[in-house]
Amino acid sequence: MISSVTNAAVKRIVLLQTRDKSRREEGLFIVEGVRMYMEVPEQRLDSVYVTESFLDHAGQDVRDRLTDTGYELVSDDVMKKMSDTMTPQGVLCLVRYYEYTLEDILNRGSMYMILDGLQDPGNLGTVFRTAEAAGAAGVIMSRGTVSIYNPKSIRSTMGTLFRMPFIYADDLCEVIADLKGRGVSVYAAHLHGAVDYAECDYRGACAFVIGNEGAGVSDAVAEAADKCLYIPMEGEVESLNAAVAASILMYEAHRQR
Amino acid sequence: MISSVTNAAVKRIVLLQTRDKSRREEGLFIVEGVRMYMEVPEQRLDSVYVTESFLDHAGQDVRDRLTDTGYELVSDDVMKKMSDTMTPQGVLCLVRYYEYTLEDILNRGSMYMILDGLQDPGNLGTVFRTAEAAGAAGVIMSRGTVSIYNPKSIRSTMGTLFRMPFIYADDLCEVIADLKGRGVSVYAAHLHGAVDYAECDYRGACAFVIGNEGAGVSDAVAEAADKCLYIPMEGEVESLNAAVAASILMYEAHRQR
Repeated sequence: MISSVTNAAVKRIVLLQTRDKSRREEGLFIVEGVRMYMEVPEQRLDSVYVTESFLDHAGQDVRDRLTDTGYELVSDDVMKKMSDTMTPQGVLCLVRYYEYTLEDILNRGSMYMILDGLQDPGNLGTVFRTAEAAGAAGVIMSRGTVSIYNPKSIRSTMGTLFRMPFIYADDLCEVIADLKGRGVSVYAAHLHGAVDYAECDYRGACAFVIGNEGAGVSDAVAEAADKCLYIPMEGEVESLNAAVAASILMYEAHRQR
Repeated sequence: MISSVTNAAVKRIVLLQTRDKSRREEGLFIVEGVRMYMEVPEQRLDSVYVTESFLDHAGQDVRDRLTDTGYELVSDDVMKKMSDTMTPQGVLCLVRYYEYTLEDILNRGSMYMILDGLQDPGNLGTVFRTAEAAGAAGVIMSRGTVSIYNPKSIRSTMGTLFRMPFIYADDLCEVIADLKGRGVSVYAAHLHGAVDYAECDYRGACAFVIGNEGAGVSDAVAEAADKCLYIPMEGEVESLNAAVAASILMYEAHRQR
């Protein structure tokens, strides 16, 4: 059992929790909690850490999986040090990256979500969660978008992380041009958009672009899109939350379909 | 200038930041940042604290307002202690409660948002922000709903707090019965709802109920409503984020109107 918080494994995990660079170098990220543990595809599971009290209270299905996957015991103090949460559930796993391709996304369906510099990890996770619910086929992100492997992003996806293909694109405009070449209509949400989102027909293949929380979509991306949409706003509201805007667009497409 | 973090004013503000009981007893809550300060109705402003560097960098409109409202200078350390954020903007105000009535809400429009035990302050603030944008007339909350005066709720409203009437109701079922008596159709979002949200007509007076993030709407409230709606979900998603669900419903009503 690992009981020292200065153990090398603990230090490594703290780095994986906090630094995107460490995650990229190792090709590993961390998920916590029993529901997430149960959802990790087995071939992607690198290692599993549990506390004794977690083990004592685990249901039969969880014990069965622990027997299959193996695990290491850690003390409560060590788990607290490793965990990103104030009150850890007692199970934490290292999970291997999986690299999707644009083809994985395109082959899966005909609605796509594009994110241009979204910064809030909670918003990103919520977009993933809603994208799955609305029937989107995948999420395409600019390099400047916050990491989906940030612990807050992962939590907010509520498990969608393992079911929704996604890519980080070096050049979002290039991907948009590629999509358009394949007959996908690309709609960018824009405060000064020309078209009311509710007046478009989304029954064909379509992609929605949502920008950064403060600055919106970049000019280049707005130009690359087929149309800039606005979501009408009453009162004195200056903008909608980015995950809310994404949800309204994807669910309007879902409703029309 | 207040430069000691053990000053009585500092202790009082820390209590107002962290304890809903203190806020209720004093009838005061805290807003931070220059945009929020500029939006507080003058008659509700109790006191204003600013740092010297904030004062030095303030624009003319902000200086004019500070001259009108008065302010107290505090050191950077004191502001850091008072603030709920990691990097305070340098302006923090105590604001007096304002008690709205159900009539204030009813007289303002014909779409209402009802929250039954929502717990996440970020979700609550986002619901307020989206409610204003979608043209809702007010927000009605159960006593068990998180406080709108929580610093995180306030931040997430992005200023809507001062423009959107709201009440905390002792008995939500009673308010729902009252609304129905006045011809308002009450729709509760429910995972096992009988009707697809996209198949209803929201052009008449209507209210949407969103429940707790984990447990949904309570059974009594679901029974009190006219209809339980579901939002269709693809994939393996178990539920939508509460603020997302509220947004989809309110914007569908907005679209129909």
